[in-house]
Amino acid sequence: MLIDGLEYVNWNRDLFEKAHAAGLTAIHATLVYWEDTQESFEKMNYWDDLIQSNNDILMHVKKSSDILVAKETNKIGIVYGFQNSAPIANDIFLVEKFFSRGLRFMQLTYNNQTPLAGGCYEKNDSGVSRFGEMVIEEMNRLGMIVDLSHAGRQTCLDAINLSKKPVAISHANPNFFHNSIRNIDEDVLKELANKNGFIGLSVYPYHLKKSWRL
Amino acid sequence: MLIDGLEYVNWNRDLFEKAHAAGLTAIHATLVYWEDTQESFEKMNYWDDLIQSNNDILMHVKKSSDILVAKETNKIGIVYGFQNSAPIANDIFLVEKFFSRGLRFMQLTYNNQTPLAGGCYEKNDSGVSRFGEMVIEEMNRLGMIVDLSHAGRQTCLDAINLSKKPVAISHANPNFFHNSIRNIDEDVLKELANKNGFIGLSVYPYHLKKSWRL
Repeated sequence: MLIDGLEYVNWNRDLFEKAHAAGLTAIHATLVYWEDTQESFEKMNYWDDLIQSNNDILMHVKKSSDILVAKETNKIGIVYGFQNSAPIANDIFLVEKFFSRGLRFMQLTYNNQTPLAGGCYEKNDSGVSRFGEMVIEEMNRLGMIVDLSHAGRQTCLDAINLSKKPVAISHANPNFFHNSIRNIDEDVLKELANKNGFIGLSVYPYHLKKSWRL
Repeated sequence: MLIDGLEYVNWNRDLFEKAHAAGLTAIHATLVYWEDTQESFEKMNYWDDLIQSNNDILMHVKKSSDILVAKETNKIGIVYGFQNSAPIANDIFLVEKFFSRGLRFMQLTYNNQTPLAGGCYEKNDSGVSRFGEMVIEEMNRLGMIVDLSHAGRQTCLDAINLSKKPVAISHANPNFFHNSIRNIDEDVLKELANKNGFIGLSVYPYHLKKSWRL
């Protein structure tokens, strides 16, 4: 079983075929970053069509056991994710609406501050805000994974602590490997591990040592 | 000349007539709080109609000298304001679009954190964020007043310092008069005054001493 913790390429049939031939069982796919509510629902329609028109090798994953089905039927399971909370704006009810359309991962922030939390590029990371705390509770209730990639250090610590279910840092590396604003301090990784969290290592050039970059 | 620093009642003809009879020259009127972009543009259309249908006693104020015209023509000048930055979401170009529709005041936050800054009810006030700094620069360029009512202490200090033009705290009282989360510390008021800023005193019950409440 081979699961890609996050992919953000511009997909086409050729790339799906290559991923299939490489033996991938599932992919957490990025649908949006800065898109607003309406644009994000439209992106979900686009992805539904993409999966439908490639359904010989793709299927939409909505629960863990769907990944086993993908494995058995020799397909790639696609897990929908948002790299930002811009789509929900200030409306907590949108979390369930996006969940019901298939969303299973959402980042609280993408580099910058949001109504929910602080981004990794802010001078002062607020940590998880009043609204962010409520959204984490709602994501926990539904079974949507809190993704802390692109979050600030304090936001990571707060969210790991607040979440009743394990959280993910879907794409980042440890700072002890390569020090970068997007990478993660060792003590945060230990907190993540203590709560059974997940980190997916990143091959994005700036998250790697210079000598490792292609 | 009598200018109301902020009003948020549900206006109707009777209330406009009373304000007119009382001799008000201008009113900073709240159009929206949590409304999104589309709803906020619709609220501006609604207010345009409201002014048009009461144009014997009302006029839309878009620049300072319009207030003098209101005085000369015996009308109340209405200044459009938003009590939150929710309408611009993450799109800096919306500042100019709302300005061109007549908006002249905008709060960075309304109690809670936004992508721009920290609210007064947050445990940890981020101060002005990366995006907030750009929005203040854009508001300065256009001539839209930064309103710090409902902002956190650090956000007030940051915005007073960052803004190239005087800012306003349109509705709040000093904490030395009555200590409340929505009221303002004396040192912040001194910074505001040093930059030729404005504070409008508030008669909202929780901003007043108990003995002063009606």
